[in-house]
Amino acid sequence: MPAPELLVRGGPLWAGPGSWWPQGAVAATGGVITYAGPAEGAPATAERVIEAHGGLIMPGLVNAHCHGAMALFRGWADDLPLEVWLQEHIFPAEARWINEQTVELCTLLAAGEMLLAGVTTVGDAYFCMHGAARAYEQAGLRALVGQGLIDFPAPGAPEPARNLAVCREFIEAWQGRSELITPGVFAHSPYTCSPDTLRGAAALCAELDCRLFTHLAETREETAQCRARHGRSPVGHLESLGLLERLDAAVHCVWLEPGEEALLARRGVAVIACPESNSKLGAGWADLTGLLAAGCQVALGTDGPASNNDLDVLSEVSFAARLAKVKTGDPAALPAEQALDLALAGGAAALGLTGVVGRLEPGYGCDLIVLELNQPHLTPLYDAASHLVYAASSRDVRQVVVAGRQVVAERRVLSFDLPGVMARVRELAGRVAAGRPGEGA
Amino acid sequence: MPAPELLVRGGPLWAGPGSWWPQGAVAATGGVITYAGPAEGAPATAERVIEAHGGLIMPGLVNAHCHGAMALFRGWADDLPLEVWLQEHIFPAEARWINEQTVELCTLLAAGEMLLAGVTTVGDAYFCMHGAARAYEQAGLRALVGQGLIDFPAPGAPEPARNLAVCREFIEAWQGRSELITPGVFAHSPYTCSPDTLRGAAALCAELDCRLFTHLAETREETAQCRARHGRSPVGHLESLGLLERLDAAVHCVWLEPGEEALLARRGVAVIACPESNSKLGAGWADLTGLLAAGCQVALGTDGPASNNDLDVLSEVSFAARLAKVKTGDPAALPAEQALDLALAGGAAALGLTGVVGRLEPGYGCDLIVLELNQPHLTPLYDAASHLVYAASSRDVRQVVVAGRQVVAERRVLSFDLPGVMARVRELAGRVAAGRPGEGA
Repeated sequence: MPAPELLVRGGPLWAGPGSWWPQGAVAATGGVITYAGPAEGAPATAERVIEAHGGLIMPGLVNAHCHGAMALFRGWADDLPLEVWLQEHIFPAEARWINEQTVELCTLLAAGEMLLAGVTTVGDAYFCMHGAARAYEQAGLRALVGQGLIDFPAPGAPEPARNLAVCREFIEAWQGRSELITPGVFAHSPYTCSPDTLRGAAALCAELDCRLFTHLAETREETAQCRARHGRSPVGHLESLGLLERLDAAVHCVWLEPGEEALLARRGVAVIACPESNSKLGAGWADLTGLLAAGCQVALGTDGPASNNDLDVLSEVSFAARLAKVKTGDPAALPAEQALDLALAGGAAALGLTGVVGRLEPGYGCDLIVLELNQPHLTPLYDAASHLVYAASSRDVRQVVVAGRQVVAERRVLSFDLPGVMARVRELAGRVAAGRPGEGA
Repeated sequence: MPAPELLVRGGPLWAGPGSWWPQGAVAATGGVITYAGPAEGAPATAERVIEAHGGLIMPGLVNAHCHGAMALFRGWADDLPLEVWLQEHIFPAEARWINEQTVELCTLLAAGEMLLAGVTTVGDAYFCMHGAARAYEQAGLRALVGQGLIDFPAPGAPEPARNLAVCREFIEAWQGRSELITPGVFAHSPYTCSPDTLRGAAALCAELDCRLFTHLAETREETAQCRARHGRSPVGHLESLGLLERLDAAVHCVWLEPGEEALLARRGVAVIACPESNSKLGAGWADLTGLLAAGCQVALGTDGPASNNDLDVLSEVSFAARLAKVKTGDPAALPAEQALDLALAGGAAALGLTGVVGRLEPGYGCDLIVLELNQPHLTPLYDAASHLVYAASSRDVRQVVVAGRQVVAERRVLSFDLPGVMARVRELAGRVAAGRPGEGA
């Protein structure tokens, strides 16, 4: 048997729930795992060897929902009522500053942040997504890139009547073009998309065989408004339009009616929860244990860096696990391995990548990270999953491999000039700040 | 005027709420700040200069409550009901492994972790506290060291009848001995200390002029038990004994009755909240905005690393800010600067160090940290406090100064051999794991 192209060895391996070896190794060829298991069964050599130096080898994390380019507005306006934040700060700033070039630049920044935080797969939803797709391709991050769809003038889609055409053009341009990039449609929400727009999106996704996402039931106000306008809850509204069947994943799902968890599960709609953002905006929290008990696929997302304000999935896992316990009053709720798997197999399911990412096992893509264990906050070590959820930080990630390609070495991004991107975003942000109302144009 | 002993310069300065300079500097002599403000007004030189290299200069954080030595049991048993966790895992392990030597060793580990996370002041409560006091003194961390008091045989105090004598001996040994170490008494709780023990603790603290702490109203069960035994809530029980007046700070306060926030405020009892640990144990959460509105001093603590499982105060601040918003449904609740100040001025007040720590201003102790800003998750920068609460990680801390002494440089602890301590804790933990029930002795 020929030597594999890549061998990662020299540390413990946590390959997924229930799969742990004190000394493990992972081998891959053509970006696909050929071996994952104990060190003693691994190939002796390979074309390229990454030494873990005692670091924990584990699957790369999945950030199932974010708006990466909104990194431009990270910390721009916080601690404000949602409507004030959106209407007075975010929307005007987006209208002025967001275009395909700034989306590409700021998505590169987001990609750099995520790679350094151990995220190897992302679901991104925004506008001007040619820019985002180019950014993730360059960064070497696996991405489900959802072109935003909304019944208002939006960056890159000034005429709402042409929104679906913009989506079609984006999907046709990117389908099959890159191993890492999968185009999809992100219908913003039932309160910003008419039934016709939503039906059109579903038809487009069916025709082009791509995935459909939407924000759903994020706030109490949205739910009340939907009842007033359509006589139904957001989930009920989509069901009545026959669209739940076609929806792949719904983001947020904080305000569900009794029984809607089971309905989502029956319709095969994955739920992507964003607990840190939902909390920071005061929106509420999704009932993760209830969703899981109802049989839903549950994934985690950071949401955009303007409402989180980072893209740190490991911190999201920790937050989700703690919230589940305090919400139920049961410290055994959402135990460590299950919480971690929301950002692995759960994320993979939500993005249609089951069997491709979220686990280290032969046949899966070789998307892995090495996390430094030789640190006081991870000492001693009794249980790797416990450490990952309750003590580790995404800043402990040292090496990152996506589809067999090393993109981070010793906490340095290899795939693009991150310092240069940061400098350009700072320059752009200087202009954004100068244009803030009351601070001169 | 002679040159100061220490000058920290070369980065923006966030000196406390409302105090921000894009280029700032801090000077100190004899461990006390003599200048904190804009770079252009700072002394031109000093005996020692620390260059921030663009990093954010800010006050060191206060971890107002932890049990540092329990780092030995970090991740030893998680996701279990509280009683099972305590009775079947923690208590037997403590009885077997905790003594003055292991407390010193494991508190050194905790001190190293905290210094690297930007914590410069800690309130620690445990047993065998000579060991903890020696550890913090060696590490160069400012510490309020509370000798534990409980009506059961405890490590270092096998005879409950001698508990108060053990406390007295500890306090007399450490009072006035070290600039950094302040001894105090930590009465474990009203459910593990009889009224006589609590009265004795209060009398001892009054006699020796030292601070008195206790856990209070952590769980619903504890509150119910207190009502059944004493006919009053935990707060009401202490008030009826006339002890609330003598109590300096109460830890947890998750289950307060209406009006008890105001009572704690009137009696001058600070509240130390531990939101990450309370959540992880499923206990509930303290109503921080309600406590603040009632006029309470509120501080943050990590609680012990066996129930958190780290000693990361910045993450506690982020968690507290998000919980306050989601609990109230108001995204403007507990805004960034106020949340951060819980771990600064709030912590100082709870530990009796107001005017000494928690702010960078002439006359305060020179306890500061430098946080690396040149990172993607902190780019761009519009608002430093927002970044600190919603995006930064304690692992971004690069330099740490306590009482004018540099104890961390470029993320390396200077004051003691942390790698050696980690190795010794790993060796000890190996024996702990080997002695786990069912795994041989």
